Amino acid sequence: MNLKAKDISERRETAHTNGVARLMAPLRLDSGQMLHDVDIAYCTYGQLNARRSNAVLICHALTMDQYVASPNPTTGRPGWWPTLVGPGQTLDPQRFFIISSNILGGCMGSTGPSSINPATGRPYGLSFPVITIADMVRAQAMLVSQLGVDTLFTVVGGSMGGMQALEWAATYPERMFSCVMLATAARHSAQNIAFHEVGRQAIMADPDWRGGEYASQSVRPEKGLSVARMAAHITYLSETALQRKFGRELQRDGLSWGFDADFQVESYLRHQGSTFVDRFDANSYLYITRAMDYFDLAQRFDGKLSLAFQKSAGVRFCVLSFSSDWLYPTPESRNIVRALNAAGAPASFVEIDSDKGHDAFLLDEPVMRDVLAGFLEAAAEKRGV
Amino acid sequence: MNLKAKDISERRETAHTNGVARLMAPLRLDSGQMLHDVDIAYCTYGQLNARRSNAVLICHALTMDQYVASPNPTTGRPGWWPTLVGPGQTLDPQRFFIISSNILGGCMGSTGPSSINPATGRPYGLSFPVITIADMVRAQAMLVSQLGVDTLFTVVGGSMGGMQALEWAATYPERMFSCVMLATAARHSAQNIAFHEVGRQAIMADPDWRGGEYASQSVRPEKGLSVARMAAHITYLSETALQRKFGRELQRDGLSWGFDADFQVESYLRHQGSTFVDRFDANSYLYITRAMDYFDLAQRFDGKLSLAFQKSAGVRFCVLSFSSDWLYPTPESRNIVRALNAAGAPASFVEIDSDKGHDAFLLDEPVMRDVLAGFLEAAAEKRGV
Repeated sequence: MNLKAKDISERRETAHTNGVARLMAPLRLDSGQMLHDVDIAYCTYGQLNARRSNAVLICHALTMDQYVASPNPTTGRPGWWPTLVGPGQTLDPQRFFIISSNILGGCMGSTGPSSINPATGRPYGLSFPVITIADMVRAQAMLVSQLGVDTLFTVVGGSMGGMQALEWAATYPERMFSCVMLATAARHSAQNIAFHEVGRQAIMADPDWRGGEYASQSVRPEKGLSVARMAAHITYLSETALQRKFGRELQRDGLSWGFDADFQVESYLRHQGSTFVDRFDANSYLYITRAMDYFDLAQRFDGKLSLAFQKSAGVRFCVLSFSSDWLYPTPESRNIVRALNAAGAPASFVEIDSDKGHDAFLLDEPVMRDVLAGFLEAAAEKRGV
Repeated sequence: MNLKAKDISERRETAHTNGVARLMAPLRLDSGQMLHDVDIAYCTYGQLNARRSNAVLICHALTMDQYVASPNPTTGRPGWWPTLVGPGQTLDPQRFFIISSNILGGCMGSTGPSSINPATGRPYGLSFPVITIADMVRAQAMLVSQLGVDTLFTVVGGSMGGMQALEWAATYPERMFSCVMLATAARHSAQNIAFHEVGRQAIMADPDWRGGEYASQSVRPEKGLSVARMAAHITYLSETALQRKFGRELQRDGLSWGFDADFQVESYLRHQGSTFVDRFDANSYLYITRAMDYFDLAQRFDGKLSLAFQKSAGVRFCVLSFSSDWLYPTPESRNIVRALNAAGAPASFVEIDSDKGHDAFLLDEPVMRDVLAGFLEAAAEKRGV
């Protein structure tokens, strides 16, 4: 099941389309505001079949993007989900029409705080409205329609992508045949909010943030964004994974007796921070973390999560959690599954034994591959894809 | 067992002595440097008995100080360990001579990076040598001698205080009758180092840090230190405690649709950050976290922790962990107990069932009170105190 170098190089050449769709109507936001001239950047892989029954929507996590199976033009790195999407993988473009879009509020081509506000001709900055996961999903649904797709074969997402999948299930159940959620939660916990708040405060403490107006002043709050990324990155890995990967290994022989990166884990985190600022916008980080913190799917259903799925009984669900994920631990997934069961929706649930923490869903976990392959194959047969 | 307001007000008046001792010799540091004119600030409570057998040393955690049972003059807050130290408590000044000193590198009167370097007449800043837990303990041992105490009845410490207690056991076993370690570890894990590195980077990212020279430039890196404190504070609480305390409760009716503190947990963390900068020095935070990261007691014993205790078989040990402490989880304590057992040292070990996380050792945990009272009472009887 291991990915070979040859596989990767083939996948790098996966036929794909990059596009930016201007949504055909203004977007009404949960905040009550209207957002005009909304662009959603996307990639597609494969072809829509004649019955229009083979479309798949991939929803990305906080810092990911639309380049799920093709190289990211900013970083040059290959697609971010090689174990699931690509030739020979479960979601093979030979069979499926795969859509992956950059979320509303993102910084890879979709409208977000770094976009030009058509009303002023200048970057939105903090005049960009606060958005929600539901707003992101409304924009995705419009994009999917504009790409000629009524009903998706499946909506797949991990982490914040899983939150989007949950919103799809609650809002557009008639437009999806199945739904896969990995390493996610139906609401943000106090600890989740706390970590995000540390990141936001780190960004806003950076004098180069300039009250969010850095773009028009040719500076960037790189140090603050880097600290935010470092803090968040710790939550993506398990304590065990960090210990196995780095332990107390030093960067060089002996201690520096100073504040250089003595330990490999320090150097690794600094690297995570410094490479992140090259590919991510600080204001997008503020807005997206805010959307995640605001996420509490049950809230608009009187606090009863099962009511969110009252029209979803016809959708086939697959919910996966990872045993060492302490960001969105297994009880959060069980909570979703219980609500799906209460709503009468068929749901497969697997807790995958892994010590790799939250990020396991992006890694090569053979059990995850097998479970997803089994679930999606059965659904595809049922759907006749 | 609950603490009543009256008890607290009585304890606020606990008779105590505040002092600053100039160590009678220069301090040879693990780095190889010599530190001259070292001051150690301390409080004492109670009187040394005629046999000099009733002295207790309290070792404090990262951000604590010598004011274990009397008001902190900076904050006006009462002593930080009211459930253990004070009139009517297990460590009662009527019975014990209690010594609590501010660690080397601290900022409450002991020599640290904000002290004046006698060689230059200016604050040390980053010219202060990097110190270790063992350096702190060497300074404590000199202080204890200067206070007329050869052998301590007990050394007690939680968290970083527990690391100091471990160093005492390894280095001065003949100078202690018993030893209590709570919520601690014999070495810093990769995750521990990672969180500290985030804090240090947050401080050093603040332009008001000025390469550590802020003191002479009349500024302070308050924003960076505040972010460091916020990140660390999350690790002091369990996910369950945060959820119970705050959940998703809002600060006011409805969301702000902005970046104000909407959630109570955000407001709480911001408060933790902003009050911390009023009482703590940023460079001290760098140096103390560095000392903790460097801590790996087994290292100088060929990686065999039991060898650290080869002369400690005559000391009675009590090791406590808390079930929801994810900063220094129970396996770290078990590791210490196994090494003590292997060295033939008598060790009581209790994992206390608590959902309050790492900070539980500072809170009113009845089981902890009972265990400590039982252990220390038995030791005191044996010692004839």
